[in-house]
Amino acid sequence: MIQTKGYATHDKNAKFSEFNFERRDVGANDILIDIEWAGICHSDIHQAKAEWEPMVPSLYPMVPGHEIVGRVSQVGDSVTKFKVGDFAGIGCFVDSCRECGACHGGVEQYCIKGSAQTYNSTEMDRTTPTYGGYSKHYVIDQNYALKVNAVEDRSGIAPLLCAGITTYSPLKRWGAGPGKTVAVAGLGGLGHMGVKIAAAMGAEVTVLSTSPSKEADARKLGATGFINTKDSDAVKAATGTFDILLDTISANHDYGTYLSMVTLNGVMVIVGVPTEPTPLNAFSLIGGNKILAGSMIGGIPETQEMLDFCAEHNVVSDVEVISPDQIEAAYDRTIKSDVRYRFVIDMQNA
Amino acid sequence: MIQTKGYATHDKNAKFSEFNFERRDVGANDILIDIEWAGICHSDIHQAKAEWEPMVPSLYPMVPGHEIVGRVSQVGDSVTKFKVGDFAGIGCFVDSCRECGACHGGVEQYCIKGSAQTYNSTEMDRTTPTYGGYSKHYVIDQNYALKVNAVEDRSGIAPLLCAGITTYSPLKRWGAGPGKTVAVAGLGGLGHMGVKIAAAMGAEVTVLSTSPSKEADARKLGATGFINTKDSDAVKAATGTFDILLDTISANHDYGTYLSMVTLNGVMVIVGVPTEPTPLNAFSLIGGNKILAGSMIGGIPETQEMLDFCAEHNVVSDVEVISPDQIEAAYDRTIKSDVRYRFVIDMQNA
Repeated sequence: MIQTKGYATHDKNAKFSEFNFERRDVGANDILIDIEWAGICHSDIHQAKAEWEPMVPSLYPMVPGHEIVGRVSQVGDSVTKFKVGDFAGIGCFVDSCRECGACHGGVEQYCIKGSAQTYNSTEMDRTTPTYGGYSKHYVIDQNYALKVNAVEDRSGIAPLLCAGITTYSPLKRWGAGPGKTVAVAGLGGLGHMGVKIAAAMGAEVTVLSTSPSKEADARKLGATGFINTKDSDAVKAATGTFDILLDTISANHDYGTYLSMVTLNGVMVIVGVPTEPTPLNAFSLIGGNKILAGSMIGGIPETQEMLDFCAEHNVVSDVEVISPDQIEAAYDRTIKSDVRYRFVIDMQNA
Repeated sequence: MIQTKGYATHDKNAKFSEFNFERRDVGANDILIDIEWAGICHSDIHQAKAEWEPMVPSLYPMVPGHEIVGRVSQVGDSVTKFKVGDFAGIGCFVDSCRECGACHGGVEQYCIKGSAQTYNSTEMDRTTPTYGGYSKHYVIDQNYALKVNAVEDRSGIAPLLCAGITTYSPLKRWGAGPGKTVAVAGLGGLGHMGVKIAAAMGAEVTVLSTSPSKEADARKLGATGFINTKDSDAVKAATGTFDILLDTISANHDYGTYLSMVTLNGVMVIVGVPTEPTPLNAFSLIGGNKILAGSMIGGIPETQEMLDFCAEHNVVSDVEVISPDQIEAAYDRTIKSDVRYRFVIDMQNA
């Protein structure tokens, strides 16, 4: 076994402390990654604080982190995808059944048996706990790791592994590109990636936000329009405007207001999960042949495609780098939306 | 002006009596239709009883009816699409602005200026009231009338003009056909057409209903499967089964239960309008890349396509023919779902 060090919370108070644990030995198909950067996703906070129970039980000790970039330091005998010294990434899951239609179709996140999540989960043996990226090392099957191009500063790449693919996948699926109008609702960790990626795809991007103070940022990120959704006249003026509306808001909000801004035959894609069910008036969809769709991260092939796309278009996340002793403070600030736009933990010197 | 006779209600008590009124003279592009059959759609009842106010105001006297089939008895000088003696149909709208993107795109039901509804509406002058199919004659621009093949019994064709196109359009859009599994939720006027049309398209059809007594009918109509949605074990066993779920239910119901039966990347299309907004849990879409879509009747080109498709596949509505003095009784029975599956008024002898 490989000894490593991480930062774990032992209960839902989400107080983090050093946690020494073991990773499995590097098997024939495995690679060992020396973790450099681990992003802090809002779902880390939900799970650390047991806010998704009972749907998603929280398993302690918990080492969160599923936005991981690092350097390959060891490879198994059968590994062909990586060599020592390469850079690699890990996203939201680290294994799946490899047999079902979803796995064969490259959408392993929908594995019929349930994929092995990167943390707060178990390996496919349903016994061995998984620990995430707030740690020094990860051992993972080569097929579930992503290739990362060696750019000088890789801290902004880590959040692509969750926030990047979560926004890339629906934008791609629903045809964001030149000639298409895309609205991104909510300008947080997900939203800021949505703006950058949609703009890189060639779409005309408008940010919808309740915070007028974010307009300058929205334009810097690549948006050409901004609508303060508290301004009902501005919302009304945007009736039927957007081909694709990417809804990244996880606070409770009225879908009808946002659907009104979607064009005939257009689509609103939900990637944020409000805590309460949202009342939906059927006519907000029927009155315009509209589509309300969900999307959840992406499979390994599409995540690689997204990383390659972002490398080609120089898209990275805007990050604020912290050390492991700042995790709790970063959680507090993330909850208050006081981050532009993603905290990333520097694990190299941890 | 052309004198004609209809059956109108003068207030929301929906008591019908003879009503003599005038249709416009036949203009160069108009045809005069001697109405043979007029279907009773549930939306007639909602509007007659002012149940959709304030969203849709009820205008009295109201002559409902937007499922109309009849014979052309006069044509204007410029009419090329019809000749005297042809059979023609009228659906939910009789005119639109003819200039907007929706009108040019053949989806006149979404006319940006608001199309002229067949009844309880006005002509595009926003002044002249429109009166519907519970009458002896209709004068309509040739471009808003549909061609009907002359089969012996045309009573079952009338409901295609609303119930038929309402179900055909989303089934076509979302790819119902051989190799696809289609579920039809609710077996009423819309649902029974959905089953017949999906089966004619070559899909494998299952009916979802709270009434186990409808199973025999469902199979007669073309379904090969039936699920009693009150049986939670049966619903659970159908998790992730249907590529397309056509939801025709207008009573309040839980979308999550139905979405659970939709397959990965699958779609649930809403064509029924519950009176209350439905609570929607975001995860019911996100957890499977699922789509919830709306659909509202269809444009003139697609309505014609549907009529031709139904003629080719011998699809008509199952109807119960009544005389105009039975309208109120038919309304009462429709409200109680006591009709298999559509009342059609015989206007020939009225």
